[in-house]
Amino acid sequence: MSEAPRSGAQALVNTLVDSGVDVCFANPGTSEMHFLAALDNPRMKSVLCLYEGVCTGAADGWYRMKDTPASTLLHLGPGLANGLSNIHNAKRASSGMVNIVGEHSALHLKYDPPLTSDIEGLARPLSHWVRRAESSATIAWDTAAAVAKASEHPGQIATLILPGDTAWKDAGEAVTPKPVAAVRPAPDAACVEQVAKVLRSGEPVLLILGNKATRGRALELAGKVAAGTGCRLGSQFFTARIERGAGRTPLERIPYAVPLGQAFLKDFRHIVTLETKEPVAFFSYPDKPSLLKAPGTVVHPLVEEHEDSTAALEMLIDALGLKDTPGLVQERIEASAPSGALNPETIAHALSAALPENAILVDESLTTGRQTMGLTMGARPHDLINNMGGSIGYGTPVATGASLACPDRRTFCMVGDGSAMYTIQSLWTQAREGLPVTTIIFANNQYAILKAEYANMGAGTPGPQAMAMIDIDRPTIDWVAMARSMGVPGVQVSTAEDFHREMARSAEMDGPCLIEVKLY
Amino acid sequence: MSEAPRSGAQALVNTLVDSGVDVCFANPGTSEMHFLAALDNPRMKSVLCLYEGVCTGAADGWYRMKDTPASTLLHLGPGLANGLSNIHNAKRASSGMVNIVGEHSALHLKYDPPLTSDIEGLARPLSHWVRRAESSATIAWDTAAAVAKASEHPGQIATLILPGDTAWKDAGEAVTPKPVAAVRPAPDAACVEQVAKVLRSGEPVLLILGNKATRGRALELAGKVAAGTGCRLGSQFFTARIERGAGRTPLERIPYAVPLGQAFLKDFRHIVTLETKEPVAFFSYPDKPSLLKAPGTVVHPLVEEHEDSTAALEMLIDALGLKDTPGLVQERIEASAPSGALNPETIAHALSAALPENAILVDESLTTGRQTMGLTMGARPHDLINNMGGSIGYGTPVATGASLACPDRRTFCMVGDGSAMYTIQSLWTQAREGLPVTTIIFANNQYAILKAEYANMGAGTPGPQAMAMIDIDRPTIDWVAMARSMGVPGVQVSTAEDFHREMARSAEMDGPCLIEVKLY
Repeated sequence: MSEAPRSGAQALVNTLVDSGVDVCFANPGTSEMHFLAALDNPRMKSVLCLYEGVCTGAADGWYRMKDTPASTLLHLGPGLANGLSNIHNAKRASSGMVNIVGEHSALHLKYDPPLTSDIEGLARPLSHWVRRAESSATIAWDTAAAVAKASEHPGQIATLILPGDTAWKDAGEAVTPKPVAAVRPAPDAACVEQVAKVLRSGEPVLLILGNKATRGRALELAGKVAAGTGCRLGSQFFTARIERGAGRTPLERIPYAVPLGQAFLKDFRHIVTLETKEPVAFFSYPDKPSLLKAPGTVVHPLVEEHEDSTAALEMLIDALGLKDTPGLVQERIEASAPSGALNPETIAHALSAALPENAILVDESLTTGRQTMGLTMGARPHDLINNMGGSIGYGTPVATGASLACPDRRTFCMVGDGSAMYTIQSLWTQAREGLPVTTIIFANNQYAILKAEYANMGAGTPGPQAMAMIDIDRPTIDWVAMARSMGVPGVQVSTAEDFHREMARSAEMDGPCLIEVKLY
Repeated sequence: MSEAPRSGAQALVNTLVDSGVDVCFANPGTSEMHFLAALDNPRMKSVLCLYEGVCTGAADGWYRMKDTPASTLLHLGPGLANGLSNIHNAKRASSGMVNIVGEHSALHLKYDPPLTSDIEGLARPLSHWVRRAESSATIAWDTAAAVAKASEHPGQIATLILPGDTAWKDAGEAVTPKPVAAVRPAPDAACVEQVAKVLRSGEPVLLILGNKATRGRALELAGKVAAGTGCRLGSQFFTARIERGAGRTPLERIPYAVPLGQAFLKDFRHIVTLETKEPVAFFSYPDKPSLLKAPGTVVHPLVEEHEDSTAALEMLIDALGLKDTPGLVQERIEASAPSGALNPETIAHALSAALPENAILVDESLTTGRQTMGLTMGARPHDLINNMGGSIGYGTPVATGASLACPDRRTFCMVGDGSAMYTIQSLWTQAREGLPVTTIIFANNQYAILKAEYANMGAGTPGPQAMAMIDIDRPTIDWVAMARSMGVPGVQVSTAEDFHREMARSAEMDGPCLIEVKLY
């Protein structure tokens, strides 16, 4: 039982922790002072972030590793706005999250003071659930509803607006709303039977696994299906979290570029999807299709996003009689420490050799990482996290939240220089919390992805002014100075052996560090 | 005449420059590659910003100095979201702005690719005008409508959504929509007569000037009214831009804290407002009122926000027969260079002594600045810019845009450490463009404003966990290293004489620099 709550804010925080939401990524303002007072609760961990995009990205990273929502504290409409792009990324990754957004008290709003905005309007496009807490007496129920929504499968974005008077008024007697367990139904049996038939047909089949199907028991079961039927196992180019490396069931990554994606998919007669949809191009281009599959390919949705992949695959294995078939397993590929120039291959070898067992790898490296990741399949077992929403600046906050969720594991965050500048404030929180995070900046001094995309778009050759919007040299960013300014030690490397050595060294450290990989 | 446009994006850019919008603060992505190609137009100045909050804040700063809108280029919904908090600040400052937001092409949207979001939904709460450009053949008209809207008085936020196919398809023949001149009507004559009567009554009157009334001819005329009638002249605590210092009509600043604001206003029988509203508390507090005036005070709106203060004051002066009355003028107060410990008084004296004539002073210093600015009334004439929307992180971007608008003047940006971390990426753009901006970081290692507000809220004494959400030491931020990492030279000062010397020295520099004022 909780102690009796006094203020509405205390009832809110008590309900959060009673419901299992025991971390709050916060950037408070004046209107949230009573919430701040309520955070002085030994059961709640509060983490200060110096920008709201760090708060919401960290909540995403927390969910990716824990499968339970974190809370954020944001300062009125503009504070929420600053967190929206990483809420978008979290939403696309099916990460649940409870956002608490401060607001003026009801009586003050009619005077339209400067920080007033349409908070519901700002929240709604990227939230699954939005509510304004109208009374301190009922806020515990609002909070329980928010947590229940965020905890659904797939995870949902719940945004609770907290007017000042609701926070500071008396909440009355302590209430403890009963937590609601999330339900994951099994898929329709007819659907499973249809997929079993397809798999027995001998025609080429690709199973595409998404969301929670790319881990644990579901992933193992998919390995049995592949071993027993000869189908292939794929993942989208971006996945919320994949358990991969030696000992895990390997998934083939569908390429990002439209022609490569089409080439990868062209020979499959059937695509079976689990907690994901058929592959779609990330962007639209004047002369390229949106759907990547070949015209005659048939798509079979086996597991819808709210359903249970483990149950579905158990049913499928029963139908196919594969219970005792051993699953596919990725072998360990011992990578020797590379040397010489930094290029996609030597970078991949350095990663493979240096990644410790059970590492968390957050990838926002865009151009560099896209050419690299296939070569790390045989690394020690690790979790790989991708950006599902495509809004840059997700990497360093997600690494921060993932590391807080799993402080006993080392987190590596690979990020391009363009992306890193978006939410670089994460480094400060990593230093403050002493998090075991290695941030790897691939510094090529350009939005390199855009140079390729300029050509893909058929926009011709960039003129000098267009090129100046893609190059981020002049001035070059000194990442080691940047990291040090926020209390994170850093080092610059420009050879493969130095990169490998610093990666391996960082794996032994207790706190955060940054490695600037100089690619120019 | 423009050259014949080819793509929709070129028609858009041509229409912008034909309408006088000749700067674009940009952070492009894949979907904006054709717009990027169109930016290769010698009549358009493109400025790369490494975060969208810098783009929108810079557009705000541009408008504050030019009274004409700038454009921004933002990457889909999340790119817009990153710019929203400074759009909020700009909206509250009545700054016009044309936001161009990239979007997937129409046919691609139905597949719900990762970067899809409800862009209209995100734009609407903080835009006055939102439109999706449906065809490259008509986009010139959409663009002209956006510029006309942004150019209204008060300035408006116009957001134009640009789907990829609209950008890349052929725009047909060149069209040059006629620019629409903004109209500023004079106020109602009866209203002027009523205010004249009040001013003749001999009862205590406060004229509160806002928006464009705090500059130029309107400000001079207000000085005549005050000199001729004995009324007092005030400004809200925050104003979009004030021409102040020696030789200008002085305005008294209504204090921020509720009890001080009430004390300032309590003896006025009448409040007359010009392009602003009666004073309202910034936040709501459990035991404090929202309106700051005394109960019996009568408010007379003389100039509504869309009307012309100059015309109104001319009418008022005619009615009062004050045409030949000399106006109030602030005398120059020669401040001697201070020495010793840094405190609000010595900081103010250093500013007064060091600010060069015609400087632009952007103030986001919160606690430090609030205690300081009254003491700089007699500095050399300068423009003072405040944060009207209350969302922190406005200062360094606004200084960037103001400096680009007025490259021959030195811009000083006073910013607290908490606020500076929000949009610190501005420094990189300042270095890239070689802007004459001096950034002054008041580093007290805390959200000091929140310590005061915690007490104002009656939230009791902060416990250790609440206090940890207010202090931003552990680690302390090294602002000189931070600046250097982005190519801006910096220096740390901890005495009044050093601060004054570095201020004066920076005034002679060509490019940007940063002064960390160590207050702890």
